[in-house]
Amino acid sequence: MVIRFYNARILSLVDDEQLIEGELWTEDKRITYVGPKVEESSRPAFTREIDLCGNLILPGFKNAHTHSAMTFLRSLADDMPLLDWLEKQIFPREAQLKPSDIYWCTQLAILEYLSSGITAAFDMYFFPEQYANACIDMGFRSVMVSGLNKFGPTLEEQKANYLRFNDYHPLINYHLGFHAEYTCPLELLEGIAKLAEELEAPVYTHNSETFSEVEGCKERYNGLTPTQLFDQLGIYNYGGGGYHCVYLDDKDMDIFQKRHLTVVSNPASNSKLASGIPSISELQKRNINIAIGTDGPASNNSLDMFKEMYLLNVLAKLKEKDASAIKAESVVRMACSNGAKAMCLNEADSLQPGKLADLCVLDLQQPNMQPLNNIVKNIVYAGNKSNVKLTMIDGKIVYENGNYPLMPDVERIYYEANAVIKRMLAE
Amino acid sequence: MVIRFYNARILSLVDDEQLIEGELWTEDKRITYVGPKVEESSRPAFTREIDLCGNLILPGFKNAHTHSAMTFLRSLADDMPLLDWLEKQIFPREAQLKPSDIYWCTQLAILEYLSSGITAAFDMYFFPEQYANACIDMGFRSVMVSGLNKFGPTLEEQKANYLRFNDYHPLINYHLGFHAEYTCPLELLEGIAKLAEELEAPVYTHNSETFSEVEGCKERYNGLTPTQLFDQLGIYNYGGGGYHCVYLDDKDMDIFQKRHLTVVSNPASNSKLASGIPSISELQKRNINIAIGTDGPASNNSLDMFKEMYLLNVLAKLKEKDASAIKAESVVRMACSNGAKAMCLNEADSLQPGKLADLCVLDLQQPNMQPLNNIVKNIVYAGNKSNVKLTMIDGKIVYENGNYPLMPDVERIYYEANAVIKRMLAE
Repeated sequence: MVIRFYNARILSLVDDEQLIEGELWTEDKRITYVGPKVEESSRPAFTREIDLCGNLILPGFKNAHTHSAMTFLRSLADDMPLLDWLEKQIFPREAQLKPSDIYWCTQLAILEYLSSGITAAFDMYFFPEQYANACIDMGFRSVMVSGLNKFGPTLEEQKANYLRFNDYHPLINYHLGFHAEYTCPLELLEGIAKLAEELEAPVYTHNSETFSEVEGCKERYNGLTPTQLFDQLGIYNYGGGGYHCVYLDDKDMDIFQKRHLTVVSNPASNSKLASGIPSISELQKRNINIAIGTDGPASNNSLDMFKEMYLLNVLAKLKEKDASAIKAESVVRMACSNGAKAMCLNEADSLQPGKLADLCVLDLQQPNMQPLNNIVKNIVYAGNKSNVKLTMIDGKIVYENGNYPLMPDVERIYYEANAVIKRMLAE
Repeated sequence: MVIRFYNARILSLVDDEQLIEGELWTEDKRITYVGPKVEESSRPAFTREIDLCGNLILPGFKNAHTHSAMTFLRSLADDMPLLDWLEKQIFPREAQLKPSDIYWCTQLAILEYLSSGITAAFDMYFFPEQYANACIDMGFRSVMVSGLNKFGPTLEEQKANYLRFNDYHPLINYHLGFHAEYTCPLELLEGIAKLAEELEAPVYTHNSETFSEVEGCKERYNGLTPTQLFDQLGIYNYGGGGYHCVYLDDKDMDIFQKRHLTVVSNPASNSKLASGIPSISELQKRNINIAIGTDGPASNNSLDMFKEMYLLNVLAKLKEKDASAIKAESVVRMACSNGAKAMCLNEADSLQPGKLADLCVLDLQQPNMQPLNNIVKNIVYAGNKSNVKLTMIDGKIVYENGNYPLMPDVERIYYEANAVIKRMLAE
């Protein structure tokens, strides 16, 4: 497939480049041209040419922390205290999961990702094979990360998964990880550190999501926070990052700087579960890489990067009591380029020749995007998933005007996902 | 027009009624039937029958505080300190407004309202005639409120507008109001109180939006907050309410209870401008009517009740550090019924025979609304304006599947709104 998008506005996110007016070409999985209009005589033959009528192309959003298959739990149990929600509602249902459930519930999540311009997810959950297959069948790019904890899988299984899924399919990668400090005894954490050393690999985990998590860790480990503990154990020697990071202290941020770790912020989840607001301004001052994730659909409850961008921005302003505390432009970078960096998807971080053709098209001819005073600020402050016209991953159009070309039977996915939760409630 | 919606789920918001499965009929401007399926032999003849395939009808959202025509300022100047934004960017542009600008910039806002299921707005801005005509021409219901302040209009003009626009068109109402304490000298506030007494009418105003506004008022009036001052002057003797109300103290809330005033919360605007988070839980405990507004598109920057519902809910949870601090069900009521109450649109607060046919249809067959574990929680936590399939006002379908039947030339509105701001920047 050789595709030409023309009459486009392009937000390449290459360096400080502003909006380009022109065209973008893709061939197979890669971008081959980004720039001003090219005369017909100088253009190659295209499989398809798409007139964007002035609409906007930007790199696809990277959902840098999620548990995709948790769609079955969406809106099942909300408005409850955090611990009741987790222990009485989430864990018992997860114990009922079958491998095939993961396939369908992941596909439901992917439908939502594609319809909101998300081209890759950094996913921690159960049954990696079924997850990977669900992604591959829908043409969706994913980086998996182990959620290892005291209930499983073993360190040996994690290593086997690492070797297997990094050589499984071009759309799939796999990173070392574990669920969190409070679900892993010390020997398991030491095992993770050894594995990171052996594979020279970055490690990712839930880190300092709640105040009580950090306090509990300090009690268990002589005043060390999760970040300080992980660093002392050598877990972060090859980089990686933390999901949530609502409660980082100065020493923690020093470690994030020193180890070039990413903070993946999850503003909707942290708000809905009343966990708190991270210090985005301080992280920015320290040039720490900040990416954005939706977290799972049980705690959000949507999978929508527009919601996350808005929330991250305005919560940072509220926390600092300063409307100028954070700029829209930097939030778009977090949602696209910084997410790619977090996930080691360096070929999908921007729009330029040679990069992977992972992108989305936003319709600017809708009332929420008019007038065109400032398109980037429009994306963050007024943008909505209803503006997403097209999503392309690996050079394939996977979403266009409400349709999923690779997945025509959407109703089947709805049916199967509903069947999962109905079965659980009946069991 | 006699219209039948069938195969519907219906959230009537009548008392504590749960979801109904069945049908809803409208005739001219009113609802004539809400209930289970009716056999063909017992049904009247319909102009149109719409199979909703299980999708949801609910009362239209009421945008209980906005400045619609500020669309021309959308994304023109964001991420600035509040005072710089207001004094250097907003006020100078507003001084350039011509009456015809209001017509087009309001129509742009109405396109956005309709596409997100909003069926009425409580609007404070300039040039009431042009505003009213923009609404009437698009079939949009609106309650106007005076933004009187020391620069105009006069009290006499407000009275004339009150008498004129309450007898102007069935879609239009007009309430007494003023901009805010800090823009009105005492004699003007006393004049408002007299006018309220003379017309036996409720009064609405910006109230306690920022900490510094309240502190300034206390300095000017011997320690009285805006609410206490207004009450002492008799401004709230016939009810009304306050927009924003981020900083109400206990005495203020006593007054809101005693006078049956409405708090119109504007969570997106209060967050983006870093103003703060109101005490929604405390207001709920006191049974104070809470409605929701988008505020104007310069400070939000969208006009989307889904964004507001989510934000109001999660900000209340964050403020209380309690994920159970507020329930999704109550937020839907705020956005629909409580908004209608605030605006004195008591005939548009719920779906039952005899009420006005102001409603919207949400598409549940989209990935963000699946599975159907809890439809009301789905609306608040996962819902998006992309779920809005149809909006009806006064019995007329004004939005359907991305189209505006009464306003086919949407491009013209975009053109004119862009022309307004271009002209201003060139002046």
